[in-house]
Amino acid sequence: MPLVGFGLWKVTKSSCADTVYDAIKAGYRLFDGAGDYGNEKEAGEGVRRAIQDGLVKREDLFITSKLWNTFHAHDHVKSLSKKQLDLWGIDYFDLFLVHFPIALKFVDPAHRYPPEWFGDDGKVHLQNTPMQETWGAMEELVDEGRAKNIGLSNCNGSLILDVLRYARIQPSVLQVELHPYLTQQPLVNLTKTLGIAITAYSSFGPQGYFELDMDKNAPSLLSHDTINAIATKHKKTTAQVVLRWATQRGIAVIPKSNHVERLAQNLSCSSFDLEEEELKTISALNINLRLNDPADIDPRLAIFA
Amino acid sequence: MPLVGFGLWKVTKSSCADTVYDAIKAGYRLFDGAGDYGNEKEAGEGVRRAIQDGLVKREDLFITSKLWNTFHAHDHVKSLSKKQLDLWGIDYFDLFLVHFPIALKFVDPAHRYPPEWFGDDGKVHLQNTPMQETWGAMEELVDEGRAKNIGLSNCNGSLILDVLRYARIQPSVLQVELHPYLTQQPLVNLTKTLGIAITAYSSFGPQGYFELDMDKNAPSLLSHDTINAIATKHKKTTAQVVLRWATQRGIAVIPKSNHVERLAQNLSCSSFDLEEEELKTISALNINLRLNDPADIDPRLAIFA
Repeated sequence: MPLVGFGLWKVTKSSCADTVYDAIKAGYRLFDGAGDYGNEKEAGEGVRRAIQDGLVKREDLFITSKLWNTFHAHDHVKSLSKKQLDLWGIDYFDLFLVHFPIALKFVDPAHRYPPEWFGDDGKVHLQNTPMQETWGAMEELVDEGRAKNIGLSNCNGSLILDVLRYARIQPSVLQVELHPYLTQQPLVNLTKTLGIAITAYSSFGPQGYFELDMDKNAPSLLSHDTINAIATKHKKTTAQVVLRWATQRGIAVIPKSNHVERLAQNLSCSSFDLEEEELKTISALNINLRLNDPADIDPRLAIFA
Repeated sequence: MPLVGFGLWKVTKSSCADTVYDAIKAGYRLFDGAGDYGNEKEAGEGVRRAIQDGLVKREDLFITSKLWNTFHAHDHVKSLSKKQLDLWGIDYFDLFLVHFPIALKFVDPAHRYPPEWFGDDGKVHLQNTPMQETWGAMEELVDEGRAKNIGLSNCNGSLILDVLRYARIQPSVLQVELHPYLTQQPLVNLTKTLGIAITAYSSFGPQGYFELDMDKNAPSLLSHDTINAIATKHKKTTAQVVLRWATQRGIAVIPKSNHVERLAQNLSCSSFDLEEEELKTISALNINLRLNDPADIDPRLAIFA
C-alpha cells in the first residue's frame, strides 16, 4: 500500500473524474473512496480514462472503498460491495473497509444512495447487526476475490481486539482521524504491535472541516507557528511537513487537493526527513481534538466514548 | 443499587471478614468484589457473620462480583461463577460483571487462583474468545438465577454498542475508572442515553495507587487545593467532596477504607449537596489521567487506545 494516496472525500461529482485522472497523471496510485462520498461512478470514470490513455494499468493502482453503516447485515455487505464495484467499473477493491463500527437500518440503494446518516424521517435508526456478522461477510469478499484486503475504520482498541478474536482474515488496515491535534499514540502503538497498518485521515486537522462548519474553532494547522517554522527551515510547505510527520513514522496519508501544484507537493512529501526533535515538537501539539465524531450527530453513536 | 458501596479491591485476606462485618455495621449494603481480588471467601465470612448476628438479611445486601479474564469461554463463565458463589457462600450475585474486555488463556483454578495477568512463564497469553460468547454465558447466569443483573467493566463506547447489538439481556451497569482527573464525560453521556448505570472505581484518583507505585506521579486529589477549598466551605472531608461530585450526578461509587470513622464519612457523602459551579470546578480538573490501563502490562491489552 503506498504511503501517500489521494482522498476522495468531498471531491464533487462534477469534477471527480478529471480530478482522479489528473491525480494519476501527477503520480498518485492510491485512491481512497467510500460509498458515502457519493462519487464512486465518477472516480471510476477517471480511472478508466487513465487506463485507456495508457497512463497506468489497473494493477498499478490501489483502490480503497468503504462499506456504509446501513449495509452491515451479511447480505447487504455482499450486495453493496458488488454495487460499489459496478459503480467504479472494476472487478476488485485493493482494500475494502468497514467505514464505521455503527450499524444503521438498511436503506434500499434504489430509494436513496448514498443513504447517509438519517432515515426519511430525519432521525438516526440503529440496527442490531453485530460487528462479527459484518466482518464474516467482509471475509467472504476476500474469498470471492472482490477485495484483496479488508480493514476497519473509526475503531478503537477494545473493538479491534474483539474483531481479532473471531477474525478468520485479519484486518490489514485501520483508517482513523489522525493529525497533530489528535495524535492517537496509544492506538498507533497497538496497531503496530498487532501488525495492522494505519492510515490517517484528516491529516490537516481542522482544514477539511472549515467549509463544513465542523472545525470546532480549532486554529489551522497549516498556518500554525510551530509548523510554519519547521516548514521554513526545510523549505517545504506546511502541508508537506504535516504529512511527513505521519509518513516518516510509517503512517499512510490520503490528502486531497483541487490544485495541481499542491497535489504534486503532497505526493512528494516523503522527499525529505524531519529531525526526531521536530517530530516530537509536532506531536506535542496534541490536544485530543476529534473533529469527526458521530456522537455529535446522535448520542447513541458515541463510538469514541 | 445503592449509590455508595464498599470496594473490596486491596482489602487483605486476613482483615477482610472483619472489614466487611464492620462495614455492614456502619450501614454499607453494597459490596463490590471480584474473583481477582483474592478475598471472596473472607468477604463471604463477614457477610455470613453479619447475617447470623441479625445485622442484615441477604436480601438487604447488594453483592457484586466480577469474572476474571482467564474465564471468558462459555463453560468457564458457568463454572467460575459457581465457584465464586461457593467462595462467598451465597446463592446469587446481585450483579456480576465482566471484569475486563480481555480474554486470557484459561488457568485451572486448582492450579492457581486468582490467576492474575500472567501465565506460569511470566507472560501474557491471549485467548480468542469473542465477547459475544462471554456475554451469552453471562446471560445464562441470569436465566439460572445465579446473577440478578449482569454488566461490563472497563469497556468503552464502541464495544458497549456492539454488545447491545447481540445482547438478549442488556448490561445493567458499567463499572469504570472515573475521578476528577478522568471524568469520562462522553462515556457518562452515552451510558445515560443507553439506560446503563455507571459505577466509578478509583474515585480518589491516584490515592489507591500510591502504595502500588502506579500513581503515575499525579498529585493527590484528597489534598488538592481546589477540593480542599470546597471541603472547608461545606465542613466536609475532601473524600466526601470527591465522592459527592460523583453521586450527585447519579454515578455510584465504591470507596474503600480501613478506618471506621472514614468508612462512615464515605457512606454519608450524600448528606450534602455541592453547587453546580463547584461540580464544574471539580470536573475541570480532568486531565484524562488513566491509572489502571492494561496496556501498561502488555501492549496487546490496549483496550483504551
